[in-house]
Formats: sequence, structure tokens, C-alpha cells
Amino acid sequence: MQKPLILVTNDDGITAPGIRHLVEFMLEIGEVVVVAPNSPQSGKGHAITINSTLTFEEIGLDGPQKDYSLSGTPVDCVKFALDKILPRRPDLVVSGINHGSNSSINVIYSGTMSAAVEAGMEGLQAIGFSLLDFSWDADFSQAKDFIQTIVKKVLANPLPPGVVLNVNIPKLPKEEIKGVKVCRQAHAKWEENFDERTNPHGKKYYWLTGYFNNMDTGQDADETALSEGYISIVPVKFDLTAHEHLQNLRQILE
Amino acid sequence: MQKPLILVTNDDGITAPGIRHLVEFMLEIGEVVVVAPNSPQSGKGHAITINSTLTFEEIGLDGPQKDYSLSGTPVDCVKFALDKILPRRPDLVVSGINHGSNSSINVIYSGTMSAAVEAGMEGLQAIGFSLLDFSWDADFSQAKDFIQTIVKKVLANPLPPGVVLNVNIPKLPKEEIKGVKVCRQAHAKWEENFDERTNPHGKKYYWLTGYFNNMDTGQDADETALSEGYISIVPVKFDLTAHEHLQNLRQILE
Repeated sequence: MQKPLILVTNDDGITAPGIRHLVEFMLEIGEVVVVAPNSPQSGKGHAITINSTLTFEEIGLDGPQKDYSLSGTPVDCVKFALDKILPRRPDLVVSGINHGSNSSINVIYSGTMSAAVEAGMEGLQAIGFSLLDFSWDADFSQAKDFIQTIVKKVLANPLPPGVVLNVNIPKLPKEEIKGVKVCRQAHAKWEENFDERTNPHGKKYYWLTGYFNNMDTGQDADETALSEGYISIVPVKFDLTAHEHLQNLRQILE
Repeated sequence: MQKPLILVTNDDGITAPGIRHLVEFMLEIGEVVVVAPNSPQSGKGHAITINSTLTFEEIGLDGPQKDYSLSGTPVDCVKFALDKILPRRPDLVVSGINHGSNSSINVIYSGTMSAAVEAGMEGLQAIGFSLLDFSWDADFSQAKDFIQTIVKKVLANPLPPGVVLNVNIPKLPKEEIKGVKVCRQAHAKWEENFDERTNPHGKKYYWLTGYFNNMDTGQDADETALSEGYISIVPVKFDLTAHEHLQNLRQILE
């Protein structure tokens, strides 16, 4: 039987420890091709490169997988892999492991998750993985068994059309992770606070900063599951229609 | 009575004809502050600027509105306007008028719509407007009455929490526009076809190109309404949870 073909991408860049761990985990399950950004692309959301051009290189990294570094965004990587690199349609697209959380509303800003969503838009099975630890030397090893189990379950039980998975992993030793919970996206937002500075020529400039404000304590919310030591899995869809409000809005707007 | 405060932004840049028309239309309804990108930001999706800094300028354009040009993305503009520029929370955020369609799946790639979604995430009333005409000298004037009517209806009947509007306007003379339809996002996708070229040094590079593949002929889909000469309005939400699949996925994944 042919091994499943797995495309791996991310938004932290092709040499980030998170993606190298994900490649290692996937090599035990399938044939792996990596197409990932050649530079950090955090917070790029679903951006694509339309007003400039792209280049790619095959780079020689350790392992039996093929590694291609692209000069674009995570979504560009998925598009480019499908059109120009992969020998056939992949059985699965995995993105990550992101250095830092993509729970709750962060799914919308996340390049990691946007790559998974793009794969879903292409009709592919797709999962984004994130670890709640921003540091470059985060410990990804405790996530191995959980990630491999989730991947095998998805390969055996394809996701419904139009759905991809957003998996977030708490920063805990393996034995303290309580299990996996399928959740809804928590109601939360970022509170902005731009940090104002003055450059050597007297001109003001700003850094985007802020804090995450979780307004949701529901037992079925991803933030709750994570805070209680569970891995959260949110099924994410890209039909953004608020179907439940169509009828009411017809009466007001038509 | 205080006039409503309206924040105007876009993704084509602050001097694009589309936003200048939207400003003109909004000045007849409220007090207008413009915070828009200083350069084209099409296809930037929900990207934010986290690894570099932002600067802004107040620029003197015709009219009683205030115009601020920011060195970031459309989503940055909304965040920056709320934190640093606006005198109070706006009553409405409008984005556009985009030069080109943001119907169907384009909502996810669109900087115009991502700005509206960001405003929705901030708990604000928000609408994105797009005209199905990419050209710089597109005729936006026929959209005036329709846009003003939609804005007045939303100011009088606030949208449900967590919902913003994606309004697309067909490229037709005013008298040929049949009316307004509240629709769902059509099931469609882009078929990629990267255009390969060779630079003067012999290295290959690529332009993202493709065609839009509408796979949906439903009478309630936005693409159908537009093709029949209607303005389409899709209520868009940013809770991406596929609630309808939670129970089933719990049985497989937990």
C-alpha cells in the first residue's frame, strides 16, 4: 500500500524547531514533502503574494523528506506546492507546530492556520498544530504521541467537507496533559496598545502590542480546555456566512 | 443630536478612487475619519504588522473629513485608528469601495473585508463594500444611493453581535441594478496557475495567477445574485467553529 503523502508547512519559517519536529513526527506515518516560508510569517493571516513574485529553492536538510523553501506566505506555500511541487494531491496537509497559541480568535491572524484553511479550500484534509510556548527552544517532544494519534484518526476518518482542525497544545509535561477536547472557538479579543517611540530624526513610530482578553468561561470553549490542561481541537470552517441571521437580515436590508 | 462617527478604510490605499467615493458618500451621513494604508494592500487578508513598526501622517485631502495614512495593513488601520486616532468609539466602520469583487471565498483573502471583520471583532458595526470592476477609473457613482441606504439601515438596525456585512455591487448602470439580496457565501475556489519566468540571471521566478471557479448555482448564493444583476450582502461572522460537526468529531477525536 502506498504511504500517505503529507505536505508540511508553517508560518515560523522552514528552519523553525516546531516544523522540524512536525516533519519528524510525520515521517513515521507517511511520505513527507515540506514547502514552507523562507522567513518568519507570523500574523500574516490569509495573505497571498500578488504584487510581487515568488522564488523557491530545494534545500538539503536532514532526513528522507524533501524540503522546499518559498519566498512567500504560508498560503502561498500551499498554493505553490499543489501547482508546482507535489507529485500528486496530498492525503493530508499539516501546518506548524506553531511557536505560540492559535486558540480562539487567533485562528484569524494566524499564518499557520491560514495555510490549513487554504488546504481545506482546495478540498484537502488539513490540520494546524500550535504549542502554547513562544520560545524558540520550546519542548515539542511531549506532543508527539498526541499529534500522531490525531493525524492517524483523521487519515482513517476524513473530516467533513469544508472543515479543517485547529489543534492547540498546552505547555505541560506529557504526563500532565489530561487528554483531547473538541471545542468551539472561545469568545475573546486582543486589546491593542500601540507602543509609541521616537526615531533618531524625531519622527514617531509605533509597535503593535496588546493583551489577550478572554471573555468566555464556557466549558466547551478552547481557552477553557487549554487552561484545564487539555489539548483543544476546534473544527474550523471557511464558509463565513452567518446562516442563522440570513432570514432576519433579509427583512431589514432587502 | 451628534452625527454618527464613521471610520473609513480600505485595502487599495488612501488615494484610491474607491475610498474617495466612499468618503464622499459617508460625509452626507456622518462625521468622517479616514485611516487607510499608504500603499496598496490587496490580498493581505487579516495580516497584521508585528515584526516591523508603523508610522502615520495626517494628509490634507479635499473635504471636511480627517485623512490619516498608515504604513500598515487594513487590519492595522482599524487597530491603530481605535487606539491612537479616533476621539471616541465610532458608530460605524466602512471599508472600500474595493476595486474588484470580494464575493464568495474572496472574503478570506480580502484586506477590505478583513478590516471590516477586525472592526466586528472590536464589537463595532462594520460593512465592506466592493465593486465588480478592477479598473482604477471604475464608475462608483451608481453605487451611491444603494450604499447610503444600506449604511442608514445598519445605523438604524444594529447588526447582531459577531456579524459584519460583505456588500458586492455588480458592474452595471444604476438603472440596471435590480435591487439588494441577502445571500450566503457561494461555494467557489481559485484554481492556481503560477506563471513561471526566468530572470536575467537565469533564475526562475513565479507570478501567482489563476481563475475563479464558481461551483455553486444556488439561488441564495452571492455569485448567483451578482450574475443576475443584484447587489449581494453576505452576513459574515468570525466565529469559525463548525458547530454542526462538534458532536460527531468528539466521537472520533476525543
